[in-house]
Amino acid sequence: MGKASIRDEDSRTRVVIEGVKPEIDGGRFPIKRTVGEKVIVEADVLADGHEALSCVLLYRKEGAPQWTEVPMEPLVNDRWRGEFTVTDLGRYRYTFQAWVDPFQSWRRNLKKKLDAEQDVSVELAVGVELVREAARRASGDDKKRLQSAVATLTRRGNPARKLRLALDEGLATLVGLYSDRRFATTYHRELAVVVDRDRARFSTWYEMFPRSCAPEADHHGTFRDCEERLAYVAAMGFDVLYLAPIHPVGHTHRKGKNGSPAAGPQDPGSPWAIGSEEGGHKAVNPLLGTLEDFRRLVHKAREHDIEIALDVSFQCSPDHPYVREHPEWFRWRPDGTLQYAENPPKKYEDIYPFDFETEDWQGLWEELKSIVLFWIEQGVRIFRVDNPHTKPFAFWEWLIEEVKRDYPDVIFLSEAFTRPKIMYRLAKLGFSQSYTYFAWRNTKWELTQYFTELTQTDVREYFRPNLWPNTPDILTEYLQSRGRPAFMTRLVLAATLGASYGIYGPAFELCEDRLRERGSEEYLDAEKYEIKQWELDRPDSLKDFIARVNRIRKENPALQSDWSLSFHQVDNEQLICYSKGTEDLRNVIIVVVNLDPHYTQSGWADLDLDKLGVDSHQSYQMHDLLTGARYLWQGRRNYVELNPQVVPAHIFRLRRRVHREQDFKYYA
Amino acid sequence: MGKASIRDEDSRTRVVIEGVKPEIDGGRFPIKRTVGEKVIVEADVLADGHEALSCVLLYRKEGAPQWTEVPMEPLVNDRWRGEFTVTDLGRYRYTFQAWVDPFQSWRRNLKKKLDAEQDVSVELAVGVELVREAARRASGDDKKRLQSAVATLTRRGNPARKLRLALDEGLATLVGLYSDRRFATTYHRELAVVVDRDRARFSTWYEMFPRSCAPEADHHGTFRDCEERLAYVAAMGFDVLYLAPIHPVGHTHRKGKNGSPAAGPQDPGSPWAIGSEEGGHKAVNPLLGTLEDFRRLVHKAREHDIEIALDVSFQCSPDHPYVREHPEWFRWRPDGTLQYAENPPKKYEDIYPFDFETEDWQGLWEELKSIVLFWIEQGVRIFRVDNPHTKPFAFWEWLIEEVKRDYPDVIFLSEAFTRPKIMYRLAKLGFSQSYTYFAWRNTKWELTQYFTELTQTDVREYFRPNLWPNTPDILTEYLQSRGRPAFMTRLVLAATLGASYGIYGPAFELCEDRLRERGSEEYLDAEKYEIKQWELDRPDSLKDFIARVNRIRKENPALQSDWSLSFHQVDNEQLICYSKGTEDLRNVIIVVVNLDPHYTQSGWADLDLDKLGVDSHQSYQMHDLLTGARYLWQGRRNYVELNPQVVPAHIFRLRRRVHREQDFKYYA
Repeated sequence: MGKASIRDEDSRTRVVIEGVKPEIDGGRFPIKRTVGEKVIVEADVLADGHEALSCVLLYRKEGAPQWTEVPMEPLVNDRWRGEFTVTDLGRYRYTFQAWVDPFQSWRRNLKKKLDAEQDVSVELAVGVELVREAARRASGDDKKRLQSAVATLTRRGNPARKLRLALDEGLATLVGLYSDRRFATTYHRELAVVVDRDRARFSTWYEMFPRSCAPEADHHGTFRDCEERLAYVAAMGFDVLYLAPIHPVGHTHRKGKNGSPAAGPQDPGSPWAIGSEEGGHKAVNPLLGTLEDFRRLVHKAREHDIEIALDVSFQCSPDHPYVREHPEWFRWRPDGTLQYAENPPKKYEDIYPFDFETEDWQGLWEELKSIVLFWIEQGVRIFRVDNPHTKPFAFWEWLIEEVKRDYPDVIFLSEAFTRPKIMYRLAKLGFSQSYTYFAWRNTKWELTQYFTELTQTDVREYFRPNLWPNTPDILTEYLQSRGRPAFMTRLVLAATLGASYGIYGPAFELCEDRLRERGSEEYLDAEKYEIKQWELDRPDSLKDFIARVNRIRKENPALQSDWSLSFHQVDNEQLICYSKGTEDLRNVIIVVVNLDPHYTQSGWADLDLDKLGVDSHQSYQMHDLLTGARYLWQGRRNYVELNPQVVPAHIFRLRRRVHREQDFKYYA
Repeated sequence: MGKASIRDEDSRTRVVIEGVKPEIDGGRFPIKRTVGEKVIVEADVLADGHEALSCVLLYRKEGAPQWTEVPMEPLVNDRWRGEFTVTDLGRYRYTFQAWVDPFQSWRRNLKKKLDAEQDVSVELAVGVELVREAARRASGDDKKRLQSAVATLTRRGNPARKLRLALDEGLATLVGLYSDRRFATTYHRELAVVVDRDRARFSTWYEMFPRSCAPEADHHGTFRDCEERLAYVAAMGFDVLYLAPIHPVGHTHRKGKNGSPAAGPQDPGSPWAIGSEEGGHKAVNPLLGTLEDFRRLVHKAREHDIEIALDVSFQCSPDHPYVREHPEWFRWRPDGTLQYAENPPKKYEDIYPFDFETEDWQGLWEELKSIVLFWIEQGVRIFRVDNPHTKPFAFWEWLIEEVKRDYPDVIFLSEAFTRPKIMYRLAKLGFSQSYTYFAWRNTKWELTQYFTELTQTDVREYFRPNLWPNTPDILTEYLQSRGRPAFMTRLVLAATLGASYGIYGPAFELCEDRLRERGSEEYLDAEKYEIKQWELDRPDSLKDFIARVNRIRKENPALQSDWSLSFHQVDNEQLICYSKGTEDLRNVIIVVVNLDPHYTQSGWADLDLDKLGVDSHQSYQMHDLLTGARYLWQGRRNYVELNPQVVPAHIFRLRRRVHREQDFKYYA
């Protein structure tokens, strides 16, 4: 525990380093960044006495032999800060070193004594000794320069010149390079950073059932049909196309329409009931095509700048080959039957969970890993993991680390809708992105609280939210029977509150809101249990609106990251206002959304102009990127009004006034 | 780092334990308690899936072979709580164990299935197997009882009886005692508790210069004179008498009156310039008497229930024997002189600090420890440590732990007036009590902020405040030229905000406020540099007032601990109101103080009645323990008015109305 003992360590290391940020659970988990992002770190650096301290931040790519050193700067109250930028995929490490710095202390005291006109001849001799010691540690030109300083300082006469040199900034820097670090404290932890590619931070997802892509009614869609759908998805601006499971679907206990226990002969079953005599998790459903077809789809998608994301659902239908080949991976009941999934009194007899407490847990882990590697070999680099919270934490940590060691570009999305600490734990364990409670956060208060927690606390260091207004299982109350405005509102919120968001389409753009049962969130005639044919060209489709919103996201870096989110006051509870900006504030987006899908709402927005980099004495232009309208605003408080039947939101790009040489007013 | 690896550990342990409180800096430091206090702990306990969990708190006295187990109870949101009471001086350890509990999960699911009227025959067989396994792990009567349960559950017929037994609370408890803990998670840290005696939590200090105790003017006081002073100190209700250093005082560079650089022949010097040819830290100044006299004083004090506390100042006068015997323990300057203490441009040439970076640091540490042990052998158990922040952190941690291993009843008070994180660090390292910024916190806002930080955050786990309105070095601005009311105000605040407080007397009770220099905090003719003769019987002495306040502290357990402090609103910034109560709320004290030493102030106090355990529909009596007056209050808001020229504070004991059999109203 690092406790001082007189016997086994040199206790002349006087500096302590504590209160490090970021540091997740005492260094147990890495923080996350994407390539090119900064890691800004802070620490409390303390020592006894009143001497000056020096502190450096050390970082390196994992496996690199050398640490890079960056000086830390003191803030206030013993807090120090430093930063570095991660430039490569993979893992980095960072830690700290700090020491009592006698030369700096000496220089500071010398100044004070000179100011008080005290005799400093002994002081000067002390300083010479410190420079001499630094010279001993130095080499090359630096050594010569330090030796020459010693010579000057010890030469007879010319006291003014000596003092000038003693207090010289350059000499201080040079001596600092060769500080005596014998008693330096190295922080007792090396903290880790996982560096992902950009899409882990900024991604736009479209979820789709491949079997519903056939051009004709009542046909089972194929991967070839999906290829035809790519242009449609790309036109809306999505860059991740996530497919419901593509594997053979089990027959035994197959669910019918609306999840009824008895399937008819035409019912395709839930694609999450994985596995049949046609294969398991490494096979494709023959009705969709061949593995070759799938690889072709992956390739074609890439031409549209779309990545195919696959579903990872570690569970089996009763017909899955694993059930035969590895009965020991499942839980058997005393009556000789297999334990199906259940949430009493609900039964899911078409699905068997794995028993992770099996004696052969190692065999099971390895096999599940091989599934992920199999699809990586087919060109997939993004996985949406189904219900990870029902498999052991240790398994995910191991799996993700194993996979990312060889494929650091792989992205895992955690589909865990469960209790908050479990969702956070999964993110800490390595998931690149995570589903959130966004679907159920509707009021201004709820959204403000939740997104402040996600983006302005330590949570942001490891939990990257991916916001979904709907999913095949979730038709939220907000979206029920409120029509197009409700879908537009939730889309704008998802797309601007989250750098990553997704929709389940075409249900979303077609504003599908038919409910199976009052009080539930289940779709009537859910696509999970049947093949759909969607009328993509319906005039009321939101596809053009979605395309516009996604174009705004692509063109405005402010919306491509979550950390700068800031809420602004509006004196109407139905209107929410927030902003995001790049670090240099050259790109600032201000969003105002009417949360009431029924009525026009108006109010006064009160912007925090300092945060937006706006001079409160200058007018500024609010350029609505949704409608193209431009408004001239002045000062903090400005009027906003939104009719949900037209557009329920403003997505403003802030344009500040710039003066040109011609003194012509212009907003940039 | 506890990271899961498929190779080297069984990863079927599915539970994680995190977010433990209290846990100081990831378990690096112990928390503090006094004998008889509770340790209430909380932790997040999570696992994958939806199964029931069990969690126990484990604790033991350090060195004891066995852990005691206490069941933890779930609160909300995966948070669990448990508690234990520390009963012995010394160190305790605590940690946690948690596991997935199949019997509890099974029982919960069985209930749900029965409610849904599902067939449970297979379920029952599953449960029998779980009881049978528990029976295998059990022994003695428990084994028999479990075996008999298995027999009942497997007997033919009588399904109702079987179900009753399956759901029986007693059976669940019994099976729980023999849970399968093969895959249990034990928290990866054992956290420590340092248990001190009561006086570490509740103490009333009086600081005094022994040499100023002579009955006649211009005489150097002796330990015998101190004996005579004991009754006076005891009458005021103090239980710790802290003496300024009692060692021989150096001659070289001795400071004169008011700290002047040249002492006259009669000047006694600062007692903190320790050591002369008459001895060092283990000697007593012969002018005070002999070591034997000192031991007698310690003994006599105890008869008054007063403990003598000694000053520990690890620094030397130029005449200290160490300077001759251990020149290597000091820092030498290039001109062959010793480095004296300085804070440029100020010089303290009568004092040499030790050089803790000496090659012989181990020798130095051992010698300093031997000083503390020497005085422990003379009967001293309380030490007030001078400027601990100018000696290495590692040294203090080692010293205090070494001393307390053999003498767990020793109390160390940290006299560090420095930056907040350093003060907290010293407390974490082991100091039993700490000086605070109280002396400079005067306004309602300052006091509320500061004492909320000290008593309502994690700080309270390791930092025990000791509040001093004055010290020989600190005559605060608040006390300057505002007379008696200012002293009374600060005394009441110190004595009621802090379970431990102290005054430097007789300067305090005699309201000494003559300042050496405008803008400073130094006394004119400070006692540090001269022998004083105090007129103890001056009619304006606060001694009777102090006695009353200290008696209130002794009689009311609410004031003997800091954690229950709670502030209440008053609509006047000059009036502050706060309460403290015992856990059972049988003893509740409410204090109202007028912070304005000049004028009468009045306002409406708004009490949080829930916190005080008062029924808002009942009147209650506020019994002012300072004046004896009793007020009948009703509801939250009540009028208060305080004239500082009379008494600047109320110290109310809350008396709630109780109904007796005779239906006679009575306030208890």
